[in-house]
Amino acid sequence: MISYTEAHKIVIETVKDFGETQVHIMDSIGRVLSEDILADRDFPPFNRSTKDGIAVNAEHVKINNPLRIEGVCAAGDPQKKLQDPAHCLEIMTGAVLPLNCDAVIMYEEVDIENGKARISSSPKPEQNIHRKGSDQQKDELILEKGEQISSQNIGILASVGKESLRVKKLPKVAIISTGNELVPIDQVPEIHQIRTSNSYTLQALLKQLNIESELMHIPDEKKILEKRIREALQDFDVLVLSGGVSKGKYDYLPEIFEKLSVQKKFHRVAQQPGKPFWFGIHQEYKTHIFAFPGNPVSTYVNFHIYFNDWMDACLGQSSKKYEIRMNDEVENPTDLTKFLLVSANHEKAVLTGDLVNGNGSGDLVSLSKASGVIKVDKQSAFKVGSVFSYIPFR
Amino acid sequence: MISYTEAHKIVIETVKDFGETQVHIMDSIGRVLSEDILADRDFPPFNRSTKDGIAVNAEHVKINNPLRIEGVCAAGDPQKKLQDPAHCLEIMTGAVLPLNCDAVIMYEEVDIENGKARISSSPKPEQNIHRKGSDQQKDELILEKGEQISSQNIGILASVGKESLRVKKLPKVAIISTGNELVPIDQVPEIHQIRTSNSYTLQALLKQLNIESELMHIPDEKKILEKRIREALQDFDVLVLSGGVSKGKYDYLPEIFEKLSVQKKFHRVAQQPGKPFWFGIHQEYKTHIFAFPGNPVSTYVNFHIYFNDWMDACLGQSSKKYEIRMNDEVENPTDLTKFLLVSANHEKAVLTGDLVNGNGSGDLVSLSKASGVIKVDKQSAFKVGSVFSYIPFR
Repeated sequence: MISYTEAHKIVIETVKDFGETQVHIMDSIGRVLSEDILADRDFPPFNRSTKDGIAVNAEHVKINNPLRIEGVCAAGDPQKKLQDPAHCLEIMTGAVLPLNCDAVIMYEEVDIENGKARISSSPKPEQNIHRKGSDQQKDELILEKGEQISSQNIGILASVGKESLRVKKLPKVAIISTGNELVPIDQVPEIHQIRTSNSYTLQALLKQLNIESELMHIPDEKKILEKRIREALQDFDVLVLSGGVSKGKYDYLPEIFEKLSVQKKFHRVAQQPGKPFWFGIHQEYKTHIFAFPGNPVSTYVNFHIYFNDWMDACLGQSSKKYEIRMNDEVENPTDLTKFLLVSANHEKAVLTGDLVNGNGSGDLVSLSKASGVIKVDKQSAFKVGSVFSYIPFR
Repeated sequence: MISYTEAHKIVIETVKDFGETQVHIMDSIGRVLSEDILADRDFPPFNRSTKDGIAVNAEHVKINNPLRIEGVCAAGDPQKKLQDPAHCLEIMTGAVLPLNCDAVIMYEEVDIENGKARISSSPKPEQNIHRKGSDQQKDELILEKGEQISSQNIGILASVGKESLRVKKLPKVAIISTGNELVPIDQVPEIHQIRTSNSYTLQALLKQLNIESELMHIPDEKKILEKRIREALQDFDVLVLSGGVSKGKYDYLPEIFEKLSVQKKFHRVAQQPGKPFWFGIHQEYKTHIFAFPGNPVSTYVNFHIYFNDWMDACLGQSSKKYEIRMNDEVENPTDLTKFLLVSANHEKAVLTGDLVNGNGSGDLVSLSKASGVIKVDKQSAFKVGSVFSYIPFR
């Protein structure tokens, strides 16, 4: 049985590039750019007024000497020209600064009467002007290949006309449940049965990472398992399984994976929850297999501590690291790395946490009360106020 | 001009209930439940083994006295019965505890040979059994109306068979851009034009809140504006606009809103960015109008500080509050509440921030570098290490 640290390292080292795909700008948030985005023109593309007011030639303007208004420059108008530098043009926010002008005085500082503008203070050259190319020059790199797209980036992408863009492709994932006690969500279980739940949780978690997945259930029968997993290994990039990897008589998966030429990277990790985790890669197809234990909390926690980080690594992103200050004493007298459910709070810029006490790894209700887990090393004990690595669930 | 605090209060007070709708479980994350979710049976529904091993009657078990194995209880099998209390049954995780048994001994503590099991320590009654109803009893409330659905809740919903569920409906939103300088994203602008970008940003932000929206662009012509806004007021629950509310000659929106019987709640807020914000509600249709200034940073920030909180309030959710410790001196000598762009870091459980210096409210690139804004009260100055209200962008 290997340690959590070794297991995590092995998983992260098996990164894979799933190629590229084209997506619409509206589907691009959270995706990772696989092209550089360049400014297709200067930004702003012209000397742009940042205020509503009058455009003037600063040198020719005198306080209390009314300026004749030659006309109006609206946003969207082609550039105009101030004919007489001692006159002015009204100008709107977003309009092109007229030729012969070098400053804009906002309406709040101007009195307009009978087609003339009287100003109360001398303008400084360049005031209220957003200079052509001052944010970005044509062909300058504005978003780099490898960057993860945020909602702030959308305006930039739109500005340079990227209605669709190339991003890193995400893996095609099959979520496989095993276990003869499971019935589909829309059925009423017999007394000895329960409804499938892990598969839906996994599908929801993958959806939050923008990953589409297909659900399948396979009964605990060797021949059927072998046939269907053989097919899935060819059809998908990743298989995520829950159940079938513990020490039970019908936990056939490890044996079947071996038969199907899946290279086992490890089975069983010195951690709790999630100890029976089985991880491997198909030798030919390079399909990744994350076979999590069947307990709901084990599956949920293992997805966060392994799959999320692996996906980040595949996309060239470093996983965000968080730490939390615990309001409880924390101890772990066992030989396993423990991941304890905690409920996090923000107090005066500090992330603090309280332990969530539950009913073991089958307990979905405790899981719902938690906002993440802390990692507690084996054989350790900590006082109130100690700081831990924190893996948030969202 | 009213203060930010007043403006925020007015916006939040105009909450509206948009009714209910039915969604599939896979589309339910982030939505707010409008029904109570009850346990449809006990959880677990039977006395469930939590280990692979043997089921015994603890009272009749003696160390080094081998127990004959009567058979196997697999997960998914109907309940079996131990015929002789001095015998045992093999049992798998998830299986129903057999009649006449009260404990499970895991395989690790058992030697099996010739159909008999020898144990090395005495079992305690109840060990490795997850008792029927110990997590939840039939008809007990497990998720409450008004709760926002998390990925942790998906397993619970699946367990009780909620393939679809009733959630609070979200508003139908139109995003309206104005400004004759704007051309669609797929066109090459003339030198004096720019591409629409705010509308895409707003659509992306709404999509992150699961809100569908429709984009429309209206030229700065009074008659067309009036006609199309009149239609939109009838067809949508919320209009989100950017531009057309400043002091420019062609900023017709406030005048048109008034003509169309929209009750102005306020226009212009003592804040920066986002000062020209116009907010109102149509007297008859109760359509909400968020008319943000046209500068990209103003629109983006105002969406976060007003619309997000308003939406939370409409859904009965309290907006999450964060604070951040700044690594910079911060000062605001103006009479406006300032929202300054900051880049946040997590350091030893503390959320810290650095100011992001930008090129003013048109600067999308600075916005991209920021992870949120801090609120800085008017006429204030703070030392390094001071703590501020922080509004994250995600």
